[in-house]
Order: sequence, then C-alpha cells, then structure tokens
Amino acid sequence: MTAKFHSIFLAMLCVLTLPLHAAKSPNFIIILADDLGYGDLGCYGHPTIKTPNLDRMAAEGMRFTDFYVAACVCTPSRAALMTGRLPIRSGMAGSHQHHVLMANSTGGLPENEITIAQALKTKGYATACIGKWHLGHEPQYLPTHRGFDYFYGLRYSNDMEPTAKIPRDASGREVQDPEWWNPTLLQNDKILEQPTDLSTLTERYTKEAVKFIEQNKKGPFFLYFPHTFPHVPLFANKKFQGKSLRGVYGDVVEEIDWSVGQILEALKKNHLTENTFVFFTSDNGPWLVKNQTGGSAGPLRDGKGSTWEGGMREPGIAWWPGKIKPGTVNHNIACSMDLFPTLCGWAGASIPTDRIMDGVDMSGLLFDTGPDLRQTMIYYYGSDFFAFRQGDYKAHFVTHTGYGKDPAVPHDPPLLFNLEKDPGERFNVAAEHPDIIANIRKEVEKYQANLVPGKPEY
Amino acid sequence: MTAKFHSIFLAMLCVLTLPLHAAKSPNFIIILADDLGYGDLGCYGHPTIKTPNLDRMAAEGMRFTDFYVAACVCTPSRAALMTGRLPIRSGMAGSHQHHVLMANSTGGLPENEITIAQALKTKGYATACIGKWHLGHEPQYLPTHRGFDYFYGLRYSNDMEPTAKIPRDASGREVQDPEWWNPTLLQNDKILEQPTDLSTLTERYTKEAVKFIEQNKKGPFFLYFPHTFPHVPLFANKKFQGKSLRGVYGDVVEEIDWSVGQILEALKKNHLTENTFVFFTSDNGPWLVKNQTGGSAGPLRDGKGSTWEGGMREPGIAWWPGKIKPGTVNHNIACSMDLFPTLCGWAGASIPTDRIMDGVDMSGLLFDTGPDLRQTMIYYYGSDFFAFRQGDYKAHFVTHTGYGKDPAVPHDPPLLFNLEKDPGERFNVAAEHPDIIANIRKEVEKYQANLVPGKPEY
Repeated sequence: MTAKFHSIFLAMLCVLTLPLHAAKSPNFIIILADDLGYGDLGCYGHPTIKTPNLDRMAAEGMRFTDFYVAACVCTPSRAALMTGRLPIRSGMAGSHQHHVLMANSTGGLPENEITIAQALKTKGYATACIGKWHLGHEPQYLPTHRGFDYFYGLRYSNDMEPTAKIPRDASGREVQDPEWWNPTLLQNDKILEQPTDLSTLTERYTKEAVKFIEQNKKGPFFLYFPHTFPHVPLFANKKFQGKSLRGVYGDVVEEIDWSVGQILEALKKNHLTENTFVFFTSDNGPWLVKNQTGGSAGPLRDGKGSTWEGGMREPGIAWWPGKIKPGTVNHNIACSMDLFPTLCGWAGASIPTDRIMDGVDMSGLLFDTGPDLRQTMIYYYGSDFFAFRQGDYKAHFVTHTGYGKDPAVPHDPPLLFNLEKDPGERFNVAAEHPDIIANIRKEVEKYQANLVPGKPEY
Repeated sequence: MTAKFHSIFLAMLCVLTLPLHAAKSPNFIIILADDLGYGDLGCYGHPTIKTPNLDRMAAEGMRFTDFYVAACVCTPSRAALMTGRLPIRSGMAGSHQHHVLMANSTGGLPENEITIAQALKTKGYATACIGKWHLGHEPQYLPTHRGFDYFYGLRYSNDMEPTAKIPRDASGREVQDPEWWNPTLLQNDKILEQPTDLSTLTERYTKEAVKFIEQNKKGPFFLYFPHTFPHVPLFANKKFQGKSLRGVYGDVVEEIDWSVGQILEALKKNHLTENTFVFFTSDNGPWLVKNQTGGSAGPLRDGKGSTWEGGMREPGIAWWPGKIKPGTVNHNIACSMDLFPTLCGWAGASIPTDRIMDGVDMSGLLFDTGPDLRQTMIYYYGSDFFAFRQGDYKAHFVTHTGYGKDPAVPHDPPLLFNLEKDPGERFNVAAEHPDIIANIRKEVEKYQANLVPGKPEY
C-alpha cells in the first residue's frame, strides 16, 4: 500500500468507525433493575411474568445472553457500573462483615473516582439519577456531588430503614407490608418524604424520568434510572397489585416493564429515538433465599450473593433504532463496566488514562462492526477473588452458596465448566482440560500482578 | 326470546363458531421433537441454542407457557397424542419394568384405539407419519396400519438397536458415534436401510415432509412429523456439526430448527399458509442424566422420567397466519391430548363417543374466542398416578427423580406448589392451603372413579 493510499484509507476508516462524532451528541439512558434475575423476563423465558415492553425493546434492539455485572450484590455492582472499574480497585468491593454499604456506613464511592456522569458533564451533558443510589449517603457522596445535576430517589435499599421490629410470616420471611418500612425519599440533597410511599415509587420515578427527558430533549442528556424494585420489600402501584400470575414479585416486575414502555414512548413522542441509546439490566441476580418474593435465574445456577452464573449474569437489552440491528441476540461476553468507555467514546468524552479501566468499548458488538474486545470475566465475592471466565470456560477457585450459612469452599484444581455447552454449571470438566486451567491460571496471575486494592470504604 | 328469534340466533351462532366448516378443510402439521426440554429454544430462554425459525414461528403465532404432554417418557406420550386419551386407558402407560416399548416388545397401540390419522381419513385427508413411531413395531401396529397413507422413519428410539457393546466415555456416558448404533429405517412396511445413517436423518425426514406437502397441496392433508432427535445418540448433518455454541446437542436442535423453517417455507411457497395449522412440541422433558448430551428444562424442576414440571411441560408453538394472532403468549393449561378433538373439530371429523376422551377442544385458546376448557392436568409415572394440577396449584402425591435410583416417595398430605408463582416447584405451600388440597383430592377421586385401565401392552 502506498503512503498516500494508506492515509486515504485511514481517513476513510475514521469516517467509517466514528460516524457519531460528526453528528449531534447522542443521549444515553441506563435503566437498572434491583435483584432482577436472569430468568425473570418474558424474553428470557419466564413462564408467567409478562414483560411486553421489554420483549418489544429486545425485538427492536439487541438482547445479550452473556451480559455480566461486576459483583453479585448491590453496592459494588453499582460502583463498577458508574466507574468502569472493578470495585476492588475503588475500595467498594465490600468486606467479610458487610457486602454492601449499610445505613450506618460512613464511606462511599471515593471522590477521586470518576463517574460516567462526571465524564459526560465535560461534554455538556444534562445528567440525572432517578432511583436508588447506594454509593454513599453522606452529603459528599450523594449523586448531586458525583456528576448528576438532579437526583430523585432513595439513598440505599428499601429494606435498610426498617421500623423497630419487622414481623415475619410462618416461613420466617419479612412481611411485605408498608407499615414496617421507613424509607427516605430525597430530591437532590433534601428529604422529600419519610416514610416514603413505596407503592407509588416506580410510578413517581417514571414521571420524573419522563419529565427529565422532555426538559432536555434538545440534548445531550444522560439519564441513570436505577429502580428500587424488585428488591424486597415489594410494593406495586394499585394498577399492578394482584394483576400478575407471579404474585407480588411479578406485579412489581410488570410495573417496571410498564415504566420501560413509558420511557421508550417518551423518546418516540419527542422524536429522540434516532439519537438515544437505551440499555436495560439489573445490578445482580435474584435473591433466592427470599422464597417467592425473590426472583429466578432461569437456567443459571444460584443467585444474588454468589459467583455462580445466577449471581452475576443478567438480562441485558440494548436499544437504538437505526443503529442497532433489530431482533439481534448477542452471545458475546459483555459487562456493565463496558458502558463507561462505550458511552464516553460516543460522546467524545475522555476516558481516564491515570488509572486502570476494566471496561472495554462495546460499540463493535452493538453495531456489529468490530470484534469482541472482552473475552474474559472476573468474579469477586466481596474483596475475594473467586472465579474467572475465559471464552467458553469458567474456573471456580472458590465457591459459596448465595446467602448460605456454609463457609466458602476452595477448589484446587478449580472446578471448570463450559458455559456455552453447560449454562447451568452442572458438569465439572476440570479433569478433561488441564490445559485450559493452566491458561486461566496464567491470566489470573497477570491480572493479579497489576491489582492494587483500594482502601476499603466499608 | 321467541322461538323464531331463538333459531335465528342459533343459526348465527353456528356461523360464528364454525367458520371452518363452510371453508376448505384445513391442513394439519404436528412436529414433535424427542426429549427436547422446556428451556431448549431461544424463545424459551436458552442462552446458547439458536432457533431463529422456531422463534419466528412463535412471533408469527402463539407460544404456550403451560403446554403439557400426557407422560414423562416416549411411548405413552405418543399414544396420548395420537388418541386424545390418557395412556392408562389404552394400556400404553407402561409398567414398573418398562416405561416404553422396547425392541423386543410385542405389544403396541391397541387396534381398537382410534388415531388422529384414522379419524381424519374419514374426511378424505391424505396422511403421513415421517419420523419416529414408537407405538408398536409388529406389522399390525405400524403407522400404515394405523391411519397413515405413508410412513418414512424409525420404528422406535435411535438407541434401541445398539451393536454388541457400546463403549462409554470417562463419565460413563454412551459414546455418540455412529459405529455403535444399528437403527433400521422403514418406508411404509419395508426396511429401506440398516444401519441407518443417522447424521442425514433429519435432512431426509425434512425432504420427505416437503415432498408430501407438495404432493398434497390441493389438500386436505395431515402430516405427523415426529423427529428422531434430540434423543441420544446425537447426530447432526455435516452443515450443522460443530456449529452450535451448545455442542452436539445444540447442533442437533439447530438442525431441527432449520427443518421447521423448511416446512414453513414449503407452506409459503405453495400458498398454503392461510389454510394450514402447524403445531410444534416435544414428547417429554430433557434426559438430564445424559449429561451434556441431555437438554435443559430451563426454570422447571427435573426432566424426562419424572412428574416434576420439567418432565411433562414442553415448548408448545402454534402457527396459522390469519387465524392465530401473531406474537401471542398463552398462559393457559393445554395438553397434547387436546390436539385430537381440536383437529377433528376443524375437519368436521367425528370424535369417538363410545369411550372417554381426555383431550378438550383448544380452539377457544388458539383463536381467543372461548374459555379454557382444560383447567386440570394429571401426571402419571408409568401406570401409577403421581400428581394433579388444578388451576395454579399442583399436588404431588408421589414423587420420583427422573431416572434416579432412589425409590418413589409418597406424600401425605401431598406436596403443594403454586406453579404460577413458583414455576420451579421450590416452595411447598401445603400447610397454608388445606382447602385447596381437599379440593384436589375430590377431583382426583372423581377422575379415578371413572378410570378403567387398559390391559397393559408392555
């Protein structure tokens, strides 16, 4: 290739690969459910929960089968989503005592961490966090101090401000009754309501989200919409109470599905569909020990609080009419941490170079224009490394049942599963593949050699 | 209402409810997979098996979430599908020794039982059975003696004619190698090939099926297309070998999906879509003990050989453009036995009145024109009654793990599960609902009072 032809080729490549830089900056919406399982949506095979809006979103967009979050519980998963970095690096991974920030914790996402919202603010984005935060509730940690122009929601989980004594039913489960919960609703830094009427919360979040979209329709905007539900205790609006075949859990998920429909409808009404990327996922797997008020991981093993697939693999639905090919099912590995570099890349915002970023740009997967830059996934339980996936294979060096009372079990050699052939992690094939285990060990060593854990925040 | 008005009203009702009688008799195609699990298709949530044709069939038609077969193993399930009657009535339920007809069995579906094909022949239907029969292999039991004009396929399962000694792999599983199997392919009553090349079987079945459709496009026709796979041993055509992310099991299912696409394509090409009803399901749940060569029941419990939901609840997809509303998900209880009265009703063929029929007409569900006539489901393990579903609740009076070595366990009071709220049968709610159990006991007594078991055929 001559030098001249080479530069023309390169210039063409830039035009082909960066079509968005010349266009208007796109808007971004991340909708995050709380404790929703891999198997809890119609389009992921749930037999009785009806999710027509999310199913349509998948039919009009891309549905991931191997989408991961970076932790099996709330706080570290959200820290990773917000920063594009493993929570162990920011001190947000959790300790043996506490896996998430508690109501009496004083820590939060360190101020030297950069959130997606902060990165996008440098490019003039209007930003809002509507929903549950859970990355620190001291004033300096609240969303309005971490890059968001607007916050409307709960500081942490809806079960973290109980009244003096929560009654339990015959099976020992906390009663899902508003009387026994005392959550605080904030608007920006101010308390708006306490106790918060949880049964109207999804509806109120949705109204706030639609209002934010309409107020910022000239764009660009970033809406982070982390729902409070289906984390227990469960409350649905009157219109949804008792309507689902799946009981109160289904009522709540079907209301979230309605909410997603409202968001997409607002984008259509305001002619924003061609310039807005929407992504739906959850923070971690289903809280199985909560009996019928916990969700389902479908064919995957275990749930919240475990590094089995059910704990960290989630529904992942991407939507952007005209950009993402409708009805695509994507089987590549992708992760919530990848949203940071992807969105910043599209917005032309800088990606921090002074720290290790664990997220990779997933544009290639979304637009079917490039390779899968992520071939691996790392699984932590709190601050402890437990498992590693490379391609089709996952090696468990330690396992622990989600919220089980039994101690963690180390494995040497590690348990090995082929996740493509055996998504339910039923058949340990370690004995047949010592070469794959050796390879994974090398990858883990390489990763650990660069690891500097952050000072634990809780 | 005056007498005159009454007759006009009745006449109108006939026109409204029987629109098909005036029209050309519709064609029917039943496609049956073998040992396919509830969770093994893309549209039922499998993470890695790609089934674009079946997914499209569901998107263009109706997908059932609560579709049952009448037995958890092959022979009785097929007997029920063919006759619209519980296999216990025809002597086809199986014994403690054998749950299916073996290669050395001499029995078969009794000659006084009426098959769908026989019923439709009275209305001039062309009929073919292409695939695995497994309802008797003595001459008088073969498909051509049971109402089918044409038969092309295997007499029973593909693992029933092994060579002298089948080697096993490190995990004790039979090797999936054509060398060790010796199946016989029949055309009508004649042996066409032995040993049969199993790797081209799905393709050859499909060609035969398409040929039958084209030869009978003037209609009416009934094509019964029971695939040999994904029953082990597993063999896919070269075009599909090693192509699936799910290994050989996925290869085989993806070839069946291709086959479904060919059938629907043949209907389109021959302008038959508006006059042809197609139904896809499987004979029983996944053969879980077969390790990675067995399928997945997704969120359901257990598989083939058990009366847990995974053994008897199956994918069920109905397709009839212009008649069935596209993209419908149906959560009502339906059963393979319902196909007999439904198809006969549409064809204007008589439904036997000299015997108890267990199937009910499902037109109301398919066309959204009537109530769910089936509110119950009965579960047998061989000739033994094990469980009963009434509405949302299922009571297990006896349980047995599919292909497990442990003895069956009786339960008094029975285990009770709410299948809508708890599809995985995890939470026994018997203690909370003695009234529901009492009701189910009454229903079971009522049913058993009318039961005359047929003379066991094997």
